[in-house]
Formats: sequence, C-alpha cells, structure tokens
Amino acid sequence: MSINDDVQSILNDIKVGDIVNIVLNNNSVISGRLMPRYESSERDHIVIKLPNGYNVGIMLKKIKFITKVSSFSIETEELPKKNLYNSSSLKSQYKNDKDLSQISNLPKIALISTGWTIASKIDYRTGGVTSVLSAKDLYTSIPELSLYASIDTEILFNEYSENIGPMQWHLIANKIIEKINSGNYDGIIISHGTDTMSYTAAALSFALQDLPIPVIIVGAQRSSDRPSSDASSNLIASVIFATQLDYSGVFVAMHGSISDKEIYCHIGTRVRKNHTSKRDAFKSIDIPPIAVVQDDRVEIQKIPSNIILHKNKNRNKKNKEFNIISKTKFDDRVFLLKYYPGFNPILIENVQKLGYKVIIIEGTGLGHINRNCFSYLKEAIASGMLVFMTSQCIWGRTNLNVYDTGRDLQKIGIIPLSNMLSETAMVKAMWLLANYNDLDYIRNKMQENISNEITFITPIVE
Amino acid sequence: MSINDDVQSILNDIKVGDIVNIVLNNNSVISGRLMPRYESSERDHIVIKLPNGYNVGIMLKKIKFITKVSSFSIETEELPKKNLYNSSSLKSQYKNDKDLSQISNLPKIALISTGWTIASKIDYRTGGVTSVLSAKDLYTSIPELSLYASIDTEILFNEYSENIGPMQWHLIANKIIEKINSGNYDGIIISHGTDTMSYTAAALSFALQDLPIPVIIVGAQRSSDRPSSDASSNLIASVIFATQLDYSGVFVAMHGSISDKEIYCHIGTRVRKNHTSKRDAFKSIDIPPIAVVQDDRVEIQKIPSNIILHKNKNRNKKNKEFNIISKTKFDDRVFLLKYYPGFNPILIENVQKLGYKVIIIEGTGLGHINRNCFSYLKEAIASGMLVFMTSQCIWGRTNLNVYDTGRDLQKIGIIPLSNMLSETAMVKAMWLLANYNDLDYIRNKMQENISNEITFITPIVE
Repeated sequence: MSINDDVQSILNDIKVGDIVNIVLNNNSVISGRLMPRYESSERDHIVIKLPNGYNVGIMLKKIKFITKVSSFSIETEELPKKNLYNSSSLKSQYKNDKDLSQISNLPKIALISTGWTIASKIDYRTGGVTSVLSAKDLYTSIPELSLYASIDTEILFNEYSENIGPMQWHLIANKIIEKINSGNYDGIIISHGTDTMSYTAAALSFALQDLPIPVIIVGAQRSSDRPSSDASSNLIASVIFATQLDYSGVFVAMHGSISDKEIYCHIGTRVRKNHTSKRDAFKSIDIPPIAVVQDDRVEIQKIPSNIILHKNKNRNKKNKEFNIISKTKFDDRVFLLKYYPGFNPILIENVQKLGYKVIIIEGTGLGHINRNCFSYLKEAIASGMLVFMTSQCIWGRTNLNVYDTGRDLQKIGIIPLSNMLSETAMVKAMWLLANYNDLDYIRNKMQENISNEITFITPIVE
Repeated sequence: MSINDDVQSILNDIKVGDIVNIVLNNNSVISGRLMPRYESSERDHIVIKLPNGYNVGIMLKKIKFITKVSSFSIETEELPKKNLYNSSSLKSQYKNDKDLSQISNLPKIALISTGWTIASKIDYRTGGVTSVLSAKDLYTSIPELSLYASIDTEILFNEYSENIGPMQWHLIANKIIEKINSGNYDGIIISHGTDTMSYTAAALSFALQDLPIPVIIVGAQRSSDRPSSDASSNLIASVIFATQLDYSGVFVAMHGSISDKEIYCHIGTRVRKNHTSKRDAFKSIDIPPIAVVQDDRVEIQKIPSNIILHKNKNRNKKNKEFNIISKTKFDDRVFLLKYYPGFNPILIENVQKLGYKVIIIEGTGLGHINRNCFSYLKEAIASGMLVFMTSQCIWGRTNLNVYDTGRDLQKIGIIPLSNMLSETAMVKAMWLLANYNDLDYIRNKMQENISNEITFITPIVE
C-alpha cells in the first residue's frame, strides 16, 4: 500500500501520513494529510484528508506542486479539527510510538477484518467502489484509535458482505474463539460489509454464547473516500464499546443518527439494515439500542427487563476467565420464504424435494399465508420438515391465536416464533440444524429465547 | 344479523341500536348501545358500545336484567362522548332519516367490502376473531358517517386479506370501474383486511390509472370489539378523504399515530404494513403521507416535487367527467425472491422450470446478491425471463453503480428498480405481464414511474 511511482515523482520525499499543502493549477491551495491509496490501477489522483476529517481525491493533472508542512508523527500530529473525539484533553494521551499495537497499559483489542466499506475506495476509473484496505492501514488514517486500545489486526478474508454466508460465519466464529483462547484480548472487533452484517451478527450470537468479552461488529455505510464517510467514527466507537462496555456478547456498532454525534450499540439478534444508503441505516427492532457512544463515553441505555445481557466479568481484569460455549457450524438447508399474494404453493413442494429441512415463512401481519398453501405445508411437515412463522411487518410479533387462519396454521403444525426477526430465525435454524440432530429438540429450541431473539416474554396489552 | 332467539328472550322488545341499562348480578350497571352480533354460535353474550366509544362483551349469565333507555334513532342519538369527531357543532347535522344512504346534498360514496378487521368480532367461544360484519351494519355503529356522505355499501366478497391475490385484485378493480361508470359517486372506499392491504393498493394503482375520483382503501388493525379498535376512526377518515381530497388516485387511510387524533392518507404504491399489531402500523416509505385527517378536516401535507398527483376534477361537480384507463388483469408468474445468506441458487433454476416469467429479487443493501447466483440468473435471463433488483432494506433505493458487484449484476442483465418497494415491484410485474405481451415493453415499463412507485427522480446527494 504505497503511493505509486508515477505519483511519487510529484511527491518527492513526501510520504503517506505527512501534512501537505497542494497548490492547484488555478492557484487555490488545499491542505491536509496525504492518505494511502489502495490499487495500482489508480494512477491519476491522490487522496487528502482535510482538517475537517473529510477525504478528497485530487486529480494529478490539476496539481501545480505539493509541499510538505510536517512529517507524520503521532506526537506532533494535529488532531482533525472536526472529529467525533477531538477533546483536547485526549490529545496529551497520544503515545510517541508509531507501532500503535505496542502501546501498553491500554485494553487490548483484536480487529478481525472480513472486507467492508470502511476498507473501500472509489475507483475513479470505473466510478465503482472496491474493498481493499487492510485493517492495519486504518492506523495511519485514524490515529485516535490509539487513545483507547492497543489493537492487533488480522485480515481473515476480504469479501463483500453479500458473499458472506454460513461458511464464513463458521470461519469468523472460529477466529474469534482462537483470539479469545489466547487470553490476550479485552474485546474483539469484526469489520464487516453492511449488507449482511445483521445476519452475521445473529449467526455469531448463536455460535458464541456466554462470551467472556464483547464482540463488536462494525462497518460503514459510506466508504472512507467519501466526505460523509461514517467509517472512522464507527470504528472508533466500536473500539470504545469493545473496551468500555459492561456487557459481553455480540453487538453491532453503527451510526445512530444522521449526525456524527451518536453511535449505537445494537444486540446482534435484533438489528436490521433498514436503509440502503443512510449512515443511520441500522435499527434495533422492538427494543432500543443498549448503549450509545457520545463524545468518547459509553452511555448504557435503560435495559428493558425483557433483555438478558451477560456482565463482562473480564473488564479491567489482568487474569481473564475464558470459558466459551461454542458451536460454530451452520447448515444451509433452511429456506426463507417471503409470502406474497399470488405465491404459487407448488414451490413448497420444490423446496421439499431439494432436501431442505426447515422453512421459515415470512407471513403477512400476525403470521398469515394464503390457505392455498395449507395442504403443501401439511405435506412438507408430514415428510419431516419443520415450518416456522415470522412476519414480514418486521416490527411486532406473530400471533396465531387471534384469527382462525392462525389457528388453522397451528393445527397443521406451523410454529409461530413471536417477535423473532425472519432473518434471525433463518440463521438460528441453520445453526440448530448443523449442531443438533434431534428434530424435536430443534423445534423446541427455535421457540426458546437463547440470545434475545425473542423479547416478547409476557403478552403485551394492546 | 340479528340477536339470537335465546338472547332475545332477555332483551324483550330491545333492538340492536337501542340505548340500554344492563344490571349485572353484582348490581353494577352498564349503560350503552346494544350492538349487532354476527355469528349464530355465540349464544352466551351480548355486546354493548359504551359512551366512550369502546365495545364490551357481557356474558348473559352475569346479567340480572336489561332495560331500554331509548330506541335507536339518529336524531335523538347521543354522539359517543369519546370520539374522533364529536364536535358538538356537527351534531345538528344529523338527519332524521334512518336510511342513511338516502341523505341528499351530501357527497355520494360507494363502500365496497372485501372482509376486514373492522368487520370482525371475537368469537368468545374459541377466543379467535372472525370477519363477518357487512358494510351496512356499520351505520348502526358509526352514525357519524352520515355527516360526511351518503354511502351505498356492497359486499364484493368476504376474505381475510391473506387470501386476497391477483384474482381478487381483478374483481375489486372491475367493481370500482362499475361504480365509477354509474356516474353516481364522488369517491369509492374499499374495506380490506390489513395483512395484504398495501399489495392491493399497489395493484389498484396500476390497474386504475388516471382515476376520476379518489379510491380509498381502509381497514383496522384491531377489531371493532376491542376497546382500542381503530375501526370507526379509520372508516370515518376514509369517508372524509373520499369526499374532501383534492386528488384522485388510490390511497390507503390508516392510523398515523398511536393516538386517535391523526389518520394518514398514504399513496397506494408507497405504503407498507410495518407492525403486526400497532394501530399506526402503516407507513409511507421514503415519502411523507400526502394528507392527514385531524378533527374532521383534511390537511394536505406539503407534496414533495417528486410525487405526481392528479387533481380530483370531479370534486363538488354535479356532472362528473369519467374517463378511466383500466387494465385489470394480473398474471401470477412472478417470483418475489428474498435473498438471504446461504440461499441455494438452484432454486432459481426451479423457478425458471415452473414457468415463471419474472423474478423480483429483494437483494441486500443497494441491491446485491451472492455471486454464486450469477450463473443461474444469467441462464434465467437467457431463457427469456426478466430479473429485477429491489432492496430488503425497505427504505432507500437500489444502486448498482456503486460497487463492482452491482455492475456485474447489470452486465448479466439484472435491472435495478430505484426505490420501488419489492412488494410493489412484484405487483407491477404481475400487472404488466397480464396486460402486455412484449417483453421489451415490460422491461422498460418496469423502470418507468407510473404511479409514484419510483420517487427518486434525481440522484440524491449523500
């Protein structure tokens, strides 16, 4: 990850991380920190981080000359002026040591990178974004990270999150166990593309129960090249959650509002990406987020009584207790069926013939489906499949006791899953199917709350 | 719909609609209006509408005796004290005429009933809710309706909305055309179960373009038997929208907040049921609702410039202009595929073999799907299928130009549908497929805004 030769020729002795003044052909001046670039194909521009924290790409042909203002050094480095955590009291804590992972006396974090938007850049040639940045490169861009933790980074794989599924969940879970068993870490951060982040969060919530430390999954809705990137503030918050959260478990750290002020900590089984592009796309469903990072502090929200959180017993402990329950396999013979009017129930027969073991129906309203599906579902269940009901409404819970359709569905053997998100139910079934053989056990476990996937413990009064 | 013989024996000459005092065995007294009951199996209770507008069921065996306070009469009827529209100035407008449909000088509405929760009751025997009430019965329960319109009612069919699909959309559309062509009506109201209400709203939005009058679809999240029912306030608001809205088109009228104060008017292609049970379950996606009924007035919201509404040219006109464009058929060979991690792409082959013509993918994020699906989708498209991309995020739009995965999808021939809801896209494809033969035409029409299903006209700056 270095500046290419042809760019270097105009940079002279300027290196990535240096503060520079760039004089453009029109004689305007841009000042900021020279950023790393990440693909050999980009030969026509450089990227500068402005004092306000935003990055800009500048075409080489528009540049008259570049001068160095100061060399990169954490000690002398000016904190970005417009930054989530630029309280001046923190500045003195910067260490005069470029190898940030060696900073002592700070909590120790393992950052496992799977490929994500924080680690992306725009390819100015094609106009697209590719994810290439290694987790280690983040240090140069976000020196504030060193205030909160000593971070070891590892690239597990580099995938767009739409390509992440059961196999990758298995790999991530095993890597987390490896890091935990080393006894070295106070928290683990998983960097992950946002598209399927909530699916992975659910998968890890089931695979890794009774975690001894927090596991925080973090990503960015907008790549670090963009002025409005949420990459650095989300990552900083994830480090703060991983080191200061009083709870262990699997959580997602993402922007909570359109401002940069609040980053939310969501429970892994109850979070959903609800907007394609907004920075505050992730929402906790039916519950509030459990914590917020505001300035550089974690504020724990009022935890509703229907949420079960495990105390982080290892917080600030030298000799950590690590006793992790893990079952990290997933079986993909689970079909998530979103019902819609006009759905042809013959497809249920097809799914059955393909060898699927479980169908998670995303029904309408309280958990309904056209009666023309009943006979097909009855046959699927008779053949040994398990069929569960969730709702496409997203918020609220299934209830098959209100309308007679619902009671008919229960007679057939379809099991409602309360307010479990359909996506979480799908992941849970994949996890149970891989780790347990007994169908009765799986059927019961699906209806039992394991990791806050069911939060309607008492019937609600409407 | 009458009180059963065994109940009648304790009622003597008391009739449905009369105000009664009920003395219970414990000598407490309940006063209210005797409500109709709707199933012969219910032989052990009666239903009373309390002065606060709530209904209660009272077990016959708990009743000592019943006395009549006053007979049912619209003129002498006390308006419910706790009601959305109980301004005393309205009271004088009540007409001394029991046949409310004959009230002259008021706008004329056709109310077409398809079966819905407003027309439901709890079966106290099984604890379930069944939908049985005819639209006509509503007059007795909601006399305020006569303030706003003269209403003709017709039961088209009586279905839970999870059983409503392409065939029923066709029937409803044709019934609306029949009512419009009669030249008698200022507005049409469709009563509909809430589960698939938004699918039907989208279907009618495509089937009936350039409507000369408003078509308002209305339902209730909670049946009229329940204290918290939204049935009457939603229905009253739908009548107000149908008679006072400045726009024609297909709209959904449902509670906008958890209070009874606001009923929202949503555009038919942009509304979604987002909660299984809350009264304010329906949300306009990516746009605000276009109008609100507050007290008894329609307040038009600021209509964003990306929303195209047709003026209601027939409002307050004696001789109405009716020139309706209608294509009311739907073809169900459209598969709505919600992508999820672990999805087995062999299913795409199955869908192709089953004779489907269109696949609407609900992809992740900006419109992505695992690369293991690419070859199957390529083959489906080569075989003549059309494949479109929407997002499971619900809010926001697809954009296949951001990441290289997206550009790969476009190369295969997958067409992004901007911010069209996946459900609306499915309905639109069913409609196009039934009414047009040329695949190129259908492909183009899918990407073209017809009825506000696409509201991202200009690229948004993020």
